[in-house]
Amino acid sequence: MKKPIFWPQRLPWTYLVTDRALCQGRPLTMIVEQALRGGVKVVQYREKTLPTREMIAEASQLKDLCERYGALFVVNDRIDVALAVAAPAIHLGQEDMPIKHARAILGDDVLIGISASSVEEAQIAERDGADYIGASAVFATPTKEEAPALGLAGLKAICQAVSVPVVAIGGLHLGNVSDVIEAGSAGVAVVSAIMAASDPEAAAQALVQQLEAYRY
Amino acid sequence: MKKPIFWPQRLPWTYLVTDRALCQGRPLTMIVEQALRGGVKVVQYREKTLPTREMIAEASQLKDLCERYGALFVVNDRIDVALAVAAPAIHLGQEDMPIKHARAILGDDVLIGISASSVEEAQIAERDGADYIGASAVFATPTKEEAPALGLAGLKAICQAVSVPVVAIGGLHLGNVSDVIEAGSAGVAVVSAIMAASDPEAAAQALVQQLEAYRY
Ligand code: NI
Repeated sequence: MKKPIFWPQRLPWTYLVTDRALCQGRPLTMIVEQALRGGVKVVQYREKTLPTREMIAEASQLKDLCERYGALFVVNDRIDVALAVAAPAIHLGQEDMPIKHARAILGDDVLIGISASSVEEAQIAERDGADYIGASAVFATPTKEEAPALGLAGLKAICQAVSVPVVAIGGLHLGNVSDVIEAGSAGVAVVSAIMAASDPEAAAQALVQQLEAYRY
Repeated sequence: MKKPIFWPQRLPWTYLVTDRALCQGRPLTMIVEQALRGGVKVVQYREKTLPTREMIAEASQLKDLCERYGALFVVNDRIDVALAVAAPAIHLGQEDMPIKHARAILGDDVLIGISASSVEEAQIAERDGADYIGASAVFATPTKEEAPALGLAGLKAICQAVSVPVVAIGGLHLGNVSDVIEAGSAGVAVVSAIMAASDPEAAAQALVQQLEAYRY
């Protein structure tokens, strides 16, 4: 039997992706805790440069924080780090480990999210056992050079093409999160809208409140 | 029971650590194959920048090459990559995953090498289950900024302090590998002496021949 997908509070997910470059000297763990206080329910730890040992130490702290706030902790890319801290979820991009390998290593109890930037990628991911899809980039972002943005139409096509939850990511902020939920996504992932905010708790809270209208 | 350590040909190991920066446009896999043809018996894949999926693809090719030449394939740092390709060995630095975590994830059948730059680090690694030690840096190298070099005396102290094999690394070349074997090490690890050589096969062969005198 398939494990139940983590789905907090019957509310669209407010999903934070970390980015140390946006911390402006503030500790990453502090910003994440503020975001959790503000109501974020999924935290994806995305770290590309730290030595593995430091990554594991930080991931362990973030996992503890997420547990304390009843949020899902997701490790981006690094299955070694996910295993070391027994993370409940991993997110893999199209350049990360193929999902079949990852599933064989992690087993069925770890949630696996897969980034998709087209209907085809999303369908392949679902077929290969993805628990959720990260549709990206919905809108163009200055930080990532990628394929052309999906737009709301592209996002909607992905949401209609798969039966697993789709989290929208890319250029999302308070002013457009309602649009992406109405396009069919199960949640909104943000990076700078929270990480770069002068008050991450308030920024998270505003997003969560915006999504209250879509509680089901 | 402890698995037997891989120990090719009762000859001190000639151990190659890869470095893409030294390939000068030549494919990494080509240089490694030339080194294997020259007699290298251990290849450690050290890669810090490629996307995980490309790392896995390259590691898979290198593992196949090593098997074809009867050499041991070792993945540096990345336990996720090691798991994806079912590598027989992993090498962990002091900033990589702690060995206890790694052993719990990898089980007893994967060889684990640990970098040590002091007697204390080597003894802790052995106590924690390391299958071999990489003593570094024996001599100062321009490519790595690290603690002061061990020198032959420091290397000898490490070799005497542990019962697992010690591979020497750091500033080694044809002119000094005999010294490090005489200091007690079970093998010599080189980077630029092979990777940067205009003829990697000849460079490997020269090292292997130099170590023939120490066959036992
Ligand atoms: Ni396992």
